[in-house]
Amino acid sequence: MTQNNNPTSGEDSLIARYFKPLATDPGAFNLDDDAAALKAAGEDIVVTTDAIVEGVHFLPDDPPDTLARKALRVNLSDIAAKGAVPSGFVLTLALRQADEAWLKPFAEALGEDAAHFGCPLLGGDTVSTPGPLMISVTAFGRVPEGRMVHRSGAHPGDRVVVTGTIGDAALGLDVLRSGLVAETLVGDPVAREMLASRYRVPQPRNALARIVRAHASAAMDVSDGLAGDLTKLCAASRVTAVIDVQSIPLSQAAAGLLARKVIGIETLLAGGDDYEILCAVPGHRMDAFTREARQAGVAMTAIGGVIAGHSPPSFLDAQGRELALQRLSYSHF
Amino acid sequence: MTQNNNPTSGEDSLIARYFKPLATDPGAFNLDDDAAALKAAGEDIVVTTDAIVEGVHFLPDDPPDTLARKALRVNLSDIAAKGAVPSGFVLTLALRQADEAWLKPFAEALGEDAAHFGCPLLGGDTVSTPGPLMISVTAFGRVPEGRMVHRSGAHPGDRVVVTGTIGDAALGLDVLRSGLVAETLVGDPVAREMLASRYRVPQPRNALARIVRAHASAAMDVSDGLAGDLTKLCAASRVTAVIDVQSIPLSQAAAGLLARKVIGIETLLAGGDDYEILCAVPGHRMDAFTREARQAGVAMTAIGGVIAGHSPPSFLDAQGRELALQRLSYSHF
Repeated sequence: MTQNNNPTSGEDSLIARYFKPLATDPGAFNLDDDAAALKAAGEDIVVTTDAIVEGVHFLPDDPPDTLARKALRVNLSDIAAKGAVPSGFVLTLALRQADEAWLKPFAEALGEDAAHFGCPLLGGDTVSTPGPLMISVTAFGRVPEGRMVHRSGAHPGDRVVVTGTIGDAALGLDVLRSGLVAETLVGDPVAREMLASRYRVPQPRNALARIVRAHASAAMDVSDGLAGDLTKLCAASRVTAVIDVQSIPLSQAAAGLLARKVIGIETLLAGGDDYEILCAVPGHRMDAFTREARQAGVAMTAIGGVIAGHSPPSFLDAQGRELALQRLSYSHF
Repeated sequence: MTQNNNPTSGEDSLIARYFKPLATDPGAFNLDDDAAALKAAGEDIVVTTDAIVEGVHFLPDDPPDTLARKALRVNLSDIAAKGAVPSGFVLTLALRQADEAWLKPFAEALGEDAAHFGCPLLGGDTVSTPGPLMISVTAFGRVPEGRMVHRSGAHPGDRVVVTGTIGDAALGLDVLRSGLVAETLVGDPVAREMLASRYRVPQPRNALARIVRAHASAAMDVSDGLAGDLTKLCAASRVTAVIDVQSIPLSQAAAGLLARKVIGIETLLAGGDDYEILCAVPGHRMDAFTREARQAGVAMTAIGGVIAGHSPPSFLDAQGRELALQRLSYSHF
């Protein structure tokens, strides 16, 4: 960690104390050096970086333990979607103050996730800011040489597959902001809690990484909304897709809200923060993909097919009519 | 870049337009994917991360081109001090708005430095913030396996060596804040400009990286003040050092201000942002180190020696009396 660990500063030594236990990789040098060393051992190192900002990507009253998990997991989700196995991360923390009551649960939760996902802390930088809290993570993963899964490999005839359920995190944000969803679910604390936790603590699909690498022709994680992210995957692959909206996997809570017309389908398709894997799988690979995903305990659903073309993907309702989506994804700008 | 490059957003496509030309490495995949791939080819990858925050590490009116250079160079300085050759970086930008008048000169200067130092953009994340501008860089370098230079290898008998001149950036910050230094140098615009530019645009010593790796027993860059950083190097190496303050290399401007007692030596020794390399070199390596540094065009000066002991390093004046430094380094907290 290149925080200013001036021995006269109690705050800096506090930071060192809480983060050193997370630096379990020998290449982290116990955070005592200015840099870490990553061994590649004949593999490619996949690098991704994602930052979250208070008031933009998380709420000012989100607890430190869930922030730690979210900051790491949004990056682990990218690593998984690229077919890579996590190998470590560096952390940049911009804090208004180095406050033990915040740092302790933050570092402990981060350490639990780092251990759980096999992704140790390699280094970082803690800086002071007068502004909103910001947590930036650069995460590393390994793939056999040249085997990173790209956005750009989808071919006409491939199936479009997505893990988990879509749209819950967007509903969770509404719950946490005491919006219409929260109001509607006032009598259902279990559903409210499930949705809020989908927003606060994503479940990255790292268990699926090797299976994606073995079978998918293209993949990315769904972070900015399924509709927009599928549009990006199709554009990168120079194809388009037809999606059967009825088949998009929804949680019971989301399906209920949709049936009661509290929300429209667009809220789910263009909502952000799903952190599921979206991928294209060649038809002859679908059986193996499905079987191995089931063995890995990851739910997955085929929601449509890749076809030739350059237009944005079509989303068809139960009657086969194309939905006219006003927005495809969530943009913070 | 995992910015939300929603095709409906003009700001996101602006970001993509300015940064894509910087992604010259094949492993950056033209910033069209969610991650980059780093090839290691039997070497270790050295990883370092440093962030700069508006109002903390740079001034709100610092121009975008110098900010870009500073953000990259503070990381290149770490890479150099570890004996590594730069191989690329990822960038996290937290912006209040994606403003072309700011982004264009920022990206152009960043591209110039990336090309000059052989350190291409591999990916990044652009996020919106309501708060101060923040630029976080994670940079990568290569060293032969196991050959990263540590803070912890200094031995009694080694010489303490530093590159360039010390303390100019701290004086430059005072100039930019119209402090006492600016007042004193009111008739000397050349000195004012030199000092300000040392603060705004560090000169990382990447030309010395291979020489440090070949000869130094320990090294780090001087970012938080020579006194504090030497204390850290000694602590990591479980040694101490005696420094001859008279021999510390100063610019003419700094020496003049010191002679006129406008500043004290502590301002120079504990000032931050030097981005010079501090290293320990075994006596029998000094001739070769000196000769090769000269050939590389990097000024270096021996300022003292490593000795056994656990106390903080001693700074001796011309009469051999130990200076009592009130502070060792600059801390932002």
